[in-house]
Amino acid sequence: MAMETLETHRCFGGTQGVYRHASDATGTAMAFSVFVPPQAADGRVPVLWFLSGLTCTWENATTKAGFQRTAAEHGLIVVCPDTSPRGLNLPGEHDAYDFGSGAGFYLDATAEPWAANYRMERYVAEELPALLAAEFPADMARQAISGHSMGGHGALTLALKRPGQWRSVSAFAPIVAPSQVPWGQKAFTGYLGPDTTAWQAHDACALIAAGGRLPELLVDQGTDDPWLETQLRPQLLERACAAAGIPLTLRRQPGYDHNYYFVSTFMGDHVAWHAERLRG
Amino acid sequence: MAMETLETHRCFGGTQGVYRHASDATGTAMAFSVFVPPQAADGRVPVLWFLSGLTCTWENATTKAGFQRTAAEHGLIVVCPDTSPRGLNLPGEHDAYDFGSGAGFYLDATAEPWAANYRMERYVAEELPALLAAEFPADMARQAISGHSMGGHGALTLALKRPGQWRSVSAFAPIVAPSQVPWGQKAFTGYLGPDTTAWQAHDACALIAAGGRLPELLVDQGTDDPWLETQLRPQLLERACAAAGIPLTLRRQPGYDHNYYFVSTFMGDHVAWHAERLRG
Repeated sequence: MAMETLETHRCFGGTQGVYRHASDATGTAMAFSVFVPPQAADGRVPVLWFLSGLTCTWENATTKAGFQRTAAEHGLIVVCPDTSPRGLNLPGEHDAYDFGSGAGFYLDATAEPWAANYRMERYVAEELPALLAAEFPADMARQAISGHSMGGHGALTLALKRPGQWRSVSAFAPIVAPSQVPWGQKAFTGYLGPDTTAWQAHDACALIAAGGRLPELLVDQGTDDPWLETQLRPQLLERACAAAGIPLTLRRQPGYDHNYYFVSTFMGDHVAWHAERLRG
Repeated sequence: MAMETLETHRCFGGTQGVYRHASDATGTAMAFSVFVPPQAADGRVPVLWFLSGLTCTWENATTKAGFQRTAAEHGLIVVCPDTSPRGLNLPGEHDAYDFGSGAGFYLDATAEPWAANYRMERYVAEELPALLAAEFPADMARQAISGHSMGGHGALTLALKRPGQWRSVSAFAPIVAPSQVPWGQKAFTGYLGPDTTAWQAHDACALIAAGGRLPELLVDQGTDDPWLETQLRPQLLERACAAAGIPLTLRRQPGYDHNYYFVSTFMGDHVAWHAERLRG
């Protein structure tokens, strides 16, 4: 699990770095980015995980979402993992933007030929946190998680499956019910097989219906998102949270689409919201 | 000069668009981005031009510099042009990162085979402003200009050559004396020919020594910029401004390099500084 530094840059008084390590979970080299705020000079600081969407690597959010400004203001480490193993050449792995490389869906695959390497839940929720704790000034008792699109699905499902690991959870335009939409159905069929009962353990709305709970939830969703009705369907999350008594703040943002121009607009709000919940 | 809209996105309450038009200056199609802030709903607003560096297009600053947040706050249009003509295949045009495509240096070439198309001064200072005035809610009496690296050279030299066109001028890690450094010497030899006397009309320090004046100037420069001594040499600008009585605020930013992580850190300061000078 030795870690290699690929690049570091001063940014908003902190350090934006990119790192690589040999992952046990995926059996591949994995790159990720970490922003360390200036406050870390005085001791360990809380951590915000940001999970990206289809086709992304650590780079998209790190260069485009603009989280460094408010993370530096509030004293948060921000970690951006990759979205799948890289460097494999499994059959069909690179054929589509919504399956295989760049589309790991933050779960541990059980179907072949994916089960040996596509273990992104174990990677993001176990292996990378252990590396972070060892190599960075991170206060692992104070973690938050967020993400965009497929990464919003990741943030919601990981937090629902592992209560207590993250104090606060938010998402930008998340896939909330993958079992019910084409992106999720394709990914779950491939990674988990055709039996839809196995899918429910990786579907935010199904997890909530089965008793999963979050202390509260902040979600931003653009009303002009081209995937709004086909893939995202925030009303399903709204219904699931209402039925379960989970306090959901769902902000429908008029005119915004699915792009990082949308994510960057509301990133400051999310960072501040998490920082408030990570205090003390 | 008909303009085509390539994409638009809601961002910080305004609209980030990307456009394309057939340029007379370059004889090619040219793409550029324009951010229109929410204040433009109530009338024409001031304009900040941002010129990018070597290898860039409109996209780098538009997606990475984070200017939309403060431009929306202060009510500025922000325009990002491309850095060279595109789609030509002149001999050697695509052979190097620091000459030809992506490296137009914001001047009108006089040497062959560049003279017919590499007319980026005319494009940025005349043709694109006319298009902007016609197509966007821009108050052309209130314009500012900034840029990064080669784009800092562009901002400085265009403002020195065309007094009064821009009310305020700033730069991030600019090439201040291209005649004295390898990037500039290579570009000027190619675009202007070997006679160095012709170069002086496109060199910020030489223009100031020859009587060029700016009302004042804000420059940020990272102290860990890998090009600091070989290509940038801010001390030459410092000396030229001191000799000419130009009020220069040169901020040497400890630990920062040449990356957009540096630009984004101080972009808010520059936008606010220009907005102050564009008021009224």
